[in-house]
Amino acid sequence: MATQAAPDDRLAALVARHRPTLDAAIEAVSTRAAWSPYSDSPSTKIHGAEKPAAGKAAFEARLGTRFEIDQPGIADWVGAEVSPYTRTPLGITYPQSDPAALIAAATAAIPAWRKTDWEVRVALCLEIAARLYARNFEMAQAVMHVAGQSYVQAFAGSGPNALDRGVEALAYAAKAMADVTPHTVWRRRFGADDVALDKTYAMVPRGVGLVICCASFPTWNAYPAMFADLATGNPVIVKPHPIAVLPMAIVVEEARATLAEHGFDPNLVTLAVDTVEAPVAQRFIDDPAIGIVDFTGSPRYGQQLERTVTGKLLFTETAGVNSVVIESVADLAQTATAIARSTSLFSAQMCTSPQTIFVPRDGIRAGEGHASFDEVATAIVSAVDAVANDPAVAAGIMGAIQGQVSIDVIDRLRDALGAQDGAAVLRDAAPYPHPEYPDARTLTPLIATVDGRARHLYAEEQFGPVLFIVAVDDADAAVAEATELAATRGTISTYLYSTDEGFIARSTDAYEEAGANLSINLHGAMWINFAAAYSDYHVTGLNPAGNACLADLAFVASRFRIVQRRRPAA
Amino acid sequence: MATQAAPDDRLAALVARHRPTLDAAIEAVSTRAAWSPYSDSPSTKIHGAEKPAAGKAAFEARLGTRFEIDQPGIADWVGAEVSPYTRTPLGITYPQSDPAALIAAATAAIPAWRKTDWEVRVALCLEIAARLYARNFEMAQAVMHVAGQSYVQAFAGSGPNALDRGVEALAYAAKAMADVTPHTVWRRRFGADDVALDKTYAMVPRGVGLVICCASFPTWNAYPAMFADLATGNPVIVKPHPIAVLPMAIVVEEARATLAEHGFDPNLVTLAVDTVEAPVAQRFIDDPAIGIVDFTGSPRYGQQLERTVTGKLLFTETAGVNSVVIESVADLAQTATAIARSTSLFSAQMCTSPQTIFVPRDGIRAGEGHASFDEVATAIVSAVDAVANDPAVAAGIMGAIQGQVSIDVIDRLRDALGAQDGAAVLRDAAPYPHPEYPDARTLTPLIATVDGRARHLYAEEQFGPVLFIVAVDDADAAVAEATELAATRGTISTYLYSTDEGFIARSTDAYEEAGANLSINLHGAMWINFAAAYSDYHVTGLNPAGNACLADLAFVASRFRIVQRRRPAA
Repeated sequence: MATQAAPDDRLAALVARHRPTLDAAIEAVSTRAAWSPYSDSPSTKIHGAEKPAAGKAAFEARLGTRFEIDQPGIADWVGAEVSPYTRTPLGITYPQSDPAALIAAATAAIPAWRKTDWEVRVALCLEIAARLYARNFEMAQAVMHVAGQSYVQAFAGSGPNALDRGVEALAYAAKAMADVTPHTVWRRRFGADDVALDKTYAMVPRGVGLVICCASFPTWNAYPAMFADLATGNPVIVKPHPIAVLPMAIVVEEARATLAEHGFDPNLVTLAVDTVEAPVAQRFIDDPAIGIVDFTGSPRYGQQLERTVTGKLLFTETAGVNSVVIESVADLAQTATAIARSTSLFSAQMCTSPQTIFVPRDGIRAGEGHASFDEVATAIVSAVDAVANDPAVAAGIMGAIQGQVSIDVIDRLRDALGAQDGAAVLRDAAPYPHPEYPDARTLTPLIATVDGRARHLYAEEQFGPVLFIVAVDDADAAVAEATELAATRGTISTYLYSTDEGFIARSTDAYEEAGANLSINLHGAMWINFAAAYSDYHVTGLNPAGNACLADLAFVASRFRIVQRRRPAA
Repeated sequence: MATQAAPDDRLAALVARHRPTLDAAIEAVSTRAAWSPYSDSPSTKIHGAEKPAAGKAAFEARLGTRFEIDQPGIADWVGAEVSPYTRTPLGITYPQSDPAALIAAATAAIPAWRKTDWEVRVALCLEIAARLYARNFEMAQAVMHVAGQSYVQAFAGSGPNALDRGVEALAYAAKAMADVTPHTVWRRRFGADDVALDKTYAMVPRGVGLVICCASFPTWNAYPAMFADLATGNPVIVKPHPIAVLPMAIVVEEARATLAEHGFDPNLVTLAVDTVEAPVAQRFIDDPAIGIVDFTGSPRYGQQLERTVTGKLLFTETAGVNSVVIESVADLAQTATAIARSTSLFSAQMCTSPQTIFVPRDGIRAGEGHASFDEVATAIVSAVDAVANDPAVAAGIMGAIQGQVSIDVIDRLRDALGAQDGAAVLRDAAPYPHPEYPDARTLTPLIATVDGRARHLYAEEQFGPVLFIVAVDDADAAVAEATELAATRGTISTYLYSTDEGFIARSTDAYEEAGANLSINLHGAMWINFAAAYSDYHVTGLNPAGNACLADLAFVASRFRIVQRRRPAA
């Protein structure tokens, strides 16, 4: 296209180097088969013996220092992160820029960026991803010490698994942009005249993208939003949660360095930090230059944005009530373990963590026999105990509790359950002793049996480690309530256990209509709440847990627009 | 997919019959080459000798009768259409249903419709389109007598050209849905375990689609919205403008008959009529069951919707200020004719009609010589006179004025221009005698020269036949003002005339950044404001003239969502 700068040799080489990855990602989102350009194991056999220590050293060298980012309008240096593992402040401060300066710098970067071949933009994103993967041991430490994820989870879930979601978004962006023919010659007869027109179709970005990250999983939703914006020509302002800045500061640093090194304006990616006391997101959102907002975080703020943001694109992922329905099981212990492990993972601080388990009050078929409601509940408690009572296992799965707020949630629930008719606490929440960090803020799950009288408790998202086991009349009633919760409170993942194919078949419609992604009879080595990029669509957009899906064509197709020119053909 | 009904033989035949059309449409939106399954000529050589009279007879048989549509909740019969050609009421009344009844019926139709193979849904839309094409002589009469379009324009622009936009939307919908793999088996090793999951991905519609049609071009935007909704599984409620119901009533009738004949719920398409005095659109918009709103109409209401509609998809096409910049011309008469004809077309009641022409006050290069500002203005007046002064030509091009409102607009402008410093009316607006309909409400364009002091007049959309010829310092200032108007007031089509490639090259950026589709140096047999489906993107979504593009992936990709299920593979 005439309006796009021809890539120089270096950029052509960059495109060529990353093309196999892009092609494979495009293939993967079509086949939905398992694929990744990365390994999500922290094994030194894969990464080399030096990397873990070097990553930790890089993280530790940051502590107590300024995180230098040479971006415009720096007015202050702020930072208030506290490690959930050491309970001490990280002491890192970040440049706080005047929002107007960041918006002006991003806007100024648009003209050259939008005329850059989209293949180059995609390749630059893949290069940023590759460099972040190379720094993943440092990233794992950063995520651990702001979010509280376990080392293994921080390495995998906030590293390769998150980068995969970003690469997946790039695959869709590439598909959507490849769909726009850049040029045609159009010929048609009008009456006696042959008309020939030369037509050019330019892709024009929406504006500046604002990416608002959540505290507990800072990178996972940020990568797809960032990469989708950048690939389609929109600069990005990253607004991390004020208690979890470091991971995204590393991302911004790496992105800016990669862009600058390849001759592009580093202000295509900037960092907007704020404090819990003085949040800044709305100042960006209200600015007409912000054309796209990607939000991950609380349902409260997310739904406020959904009700108020107009005239710009808004993508949200918040949370909801993730339910489990147990109609019957082949092996009770196996099912209980699957549920227990997934609710234990990161102490249920995940948007996919199961919270509310519906079990028929008269019990269920279990293998060749029968299990009473209490036996089902007891099996789940035992399976949680198996994790919680072994500190090494607990440390690897549960990690730490990011914020006091989750401790408070559980304290309030304990009190509420104590006063609740029909409720019984089967397992209290309690700290487990972390083998490496004695001061770690930890909490194992609270497990209670309840009935419909406790609906005001189990039908709300409780952001902390809790499992409600709800006695219901029968499994059909369970599905009815689970899907009604999904439709009205939102859900990101739902779970169903049944050995009855007829029951499964008659239940799935309700889940589809509630816009609830459903996992049926999962157990074994894979976490039942694991969501694989390129294969598992994350969030349906059909219920209150968010309007955005990671990732599909809808996630990218509106981030750019098409402007055409036409003139008589030569 | 397990959840979709297998098509029976008849439906399979329908899909097979329409597949070549769909394939060709998909090919056309990729190549952007000229293509149509229809002919836009009303020639009896193509359509047969009987069709014109039969179409007129069908239209006339409707006059003074009830337009029967067997839809739910009919509470009243209303209709207040008046022909701009005869100035007499059509006397047709339409069933007015309780909005809640239409929404309930549409909602009830979703479960079966969403499980219908999307190929069948697309084929049914193509069948509806084919049947409407077969009724196009009747449609042309209907459009003439509610909108005021000329016979030729009503036949082509509201017939095949509009159906093409619908088929184009079907092509994009098919592409977006084909992109969703219905099923995969996913295999990955986790630790020592090989995990194999069977995954199913279902496309789930947003809800009920509301299609709000404009008065002057009822079908053109309605077809793409309707077909995009239906193809992606959403039922449609059609809300025509109360003064232009008949064309869309015919569409609803044909769609319902086609659906019913193939075993589908006719309430997938219903008609929501209202009156100018008691508009009903907002009652639908406020209903949570309405998941998608497609609006075509006034900037005032469109922008109100853009500011207030949240939590559902909103696609708008309104209007703006379409400008012409004349920097230099190869042949002044040729350029003047091109502009004059396009502003004369349907008496400038089109969203693409040029309104405001910027000409350097010192004149322009014209061929080998120079033309003064006044000479340029005079040439345009002469070219309009050439249309206006020949009633047969005027009737074929200008048609009639749909509403008194446009007469009033011109009357007020005449007064305002009389009192405006620096303004001169070069050509007054006046009725022309229609050769066939002596009572037709006609009006030829008002043409005035003005300067920047009249900005409050020329920088607003004036919905009626007027051309402002604005004296500016130079052509660069003209582009600056034209693109600033585009960005701030909106535009759907802009026009540039220049023989200076350097000027063209340095101007195009500003148009792109304003989101203004630009036609350069167009003249000749094709109307310069003709927009060809499959090739010309209509509306960029980057300025206040609307947020929706006809058609691109963004127009369809969000109309459905993806809900997945996964379970251990057998």
